[in-house]
Amino acid sequence: MNTSKSIAVLGGDARYLQMIKNLATYQTTDIHLVGFDQLNQGFTEVKQVDMDDLDAAKLDAVILPIPGTDDKGNIETVFSDTNIQITVEWLKQLPKHCLIFSGITNDFLTNSVKEAGLRLFPLMDRNDVAIYNSIPTVEGTIMIAIEHTDFTIHSSNIIVLGLGRVGMSTASKFAGLGAKVFVGSRSNEDLARAKEMGLTPFHISELPSYTPNCDILINTVPALVVTDETIKPMKSHALIIDLASKPGGTDFDYAKKRGITALHSLGLPGIVAPKTAGEILGNVIAQILKEQQ
Amino acid sequence: MNTSKSIAVLGGDARYLQMIKNLATYQTTDIHLVGFDQLNQGFTEVKQVDMDDLDAAKLDAVILPIPGTDDKGNIETVFSDTNIQITVEWLKQLPKHCLIFSGITNDFLTNSVKEAGLRLFPLMDRNDVAIYNSIPTVEGTIMIAIEHTDFTIHSSNIIVLGLGRVGMSTASKFAGLGAKVFVGSRSNEDLARAKEMGLTPFHISELPSYTPNCDILINTVPALVVTDETIKPMKSHALIIDLASKPGGTDFDYAKKRGITALHSLGLPGIVAPKTAGEILGNVIAQILKEQQ
Repeated sequence: MNTSKSIAVLGGDARYLQMIKNLATYQTTDIHLVGFDQLNQGFTEVKQVDMDDLDAAKLDAVILPIPGTDDKGNIETVFSDTNIQITVEWLKQLPKHCLIFSGITNDFLTNSVKEAGLRLFPLMDRNDVAIYNSIPTVEGTIMIAIEHTDFTIHSSNIIVLGLGRVGMSTASKFAGLGAKVFVGSRSNEDLARAKEMGLTPFHISELPSYTPNCDILINTVPALVVTDETIKPMKSHALIIDLASKPGGTDFDYAKKRGITALHSLGLPGIVAPKTAGEILGNVIAQILKEQQ
Repeated sequence: MNTSKSIAVLGGDARYLQMIKNLATYQTTDIHLVGFDQLNQGFTEVKQVDMDDLDAAKLDAVILPIPGTDDKGNIETVFSDTNIQITVEWLKQLPKHCLIFSGITNDFLTNSVKEAGLRLFPLMDRNDVAIYNSIPTVEGTIMIAIEHTDFTIHSSNIIVLGLGRVGMSTASKFAGLGAKVFVGSRSNEDLARAKEMGLTPFHISELPSYTPNCDILINTVPALVVTDETIKPMKSHALIIDLASKPGGTDFDYAKKRGITALHSLGLPGIVAPKTAGEILGNVIAQILKEQQ
């Protein structure tokens, strides 16, 4: 029995270069790249092909870019001028065991994959990927905090809102650098965990009473929690870093009016550590391929 | 008895603004600034004067810039076009109890102050200042490490050379971010301390056998330790950050020839955290003034 996996990578950004290198280290993978023709970097054991030359019926996995497709099935190709479009018809040519990977999904992609009778793995929805990705996210946040202030993180008063997958990593790493970390949450479990970690927990409804002494406020909650009432008493040197996905959880207009720097920092793993971000994706795809064997 | 201290600040950079603010919070200080005339920032309780208007005989302390003077007594004034020159004659007008502060010193300054029968405090020579300054130095190093690599500090192999005042802070903070930290030193005491800290110690003579697996090498030793033999086996993605004072401890020419990025990063506290750096100076000067009362 031939256990080699035939994988097509359709488009992708800098993170995908490391992911491809990572997947190519497995002797059991046979990788075909579409949408990387402007890439000078040589890949051993990897074939650059056109979409039309792909033998869809023989593929075991299709890896789409992190953003998935647009609502017409078009794919972002950073390293090519070629347009790539995914259609239900094309998906139907794939064998039933073929796995479809993307970062996130939308109605078009979810429905098309379903209609073709295939399984979709939106990797960014996975808890393991979110936790691994929180590492470069926190390092990017640390870089931003150092760059945008004239004081040290050490000894600063730092508020972290939310103690989820990103909030937990953020709070612990800033504490490790010597900051005094306050954690705001509405979950009793999170407040208990913050206390256990040696941090100062508070109920998020009390946020406005904590912001007057805050040097850096880091939000991870995807809802409007950093309101005008929260921002108003902040010192002029304070910095707000919002890590929550669009539209974020900060009243950015009010912050601007009030003269407080508020940054909506998204996609940090791909910016500060594309190699690590690619390794994370490569590892998890290899693991899923193995599990689904 | 009037216990108010009359202090003249002659020149200085951004760090001095916070230092002045800090000193001005003491009710017992009476501060005169020379060489800050281009400064828009208003200081309460602080007087801007010309050198000629200073009543030298009434000063309790004179604060010179971090670099001290050049070898003719000239002073760097970042916030003024005025030339300020310190002479032995001027120093002799100061009362015998007057304390002279600078960051570093040179033969001219040391000898002139001695000839005038006064005491000089080169603050950067003090262990406490060096340890406090190591905090912003490490944060600057973290920022550089994140900016100049495409991988995370977390899980990276990091070598720190020297476990002195800066090396100790560097090793512990990078370990706190999840790096695997190796400490190279020739001191048995330092190697024992590194082991106690949960790090991997090695004798610095074995450095070339540790560099092939190194992602980031941070040097704090002010002697040529990062030699061609050390750099040769390094991976092309590796980064060298040299924190040792001029000329550093790295064969920068060889690193360039070998295609390894090697950065000589000096003065990081003033760059990444001038406010904190100024507070450190203000606090230590206030403490010395109190001790010498």
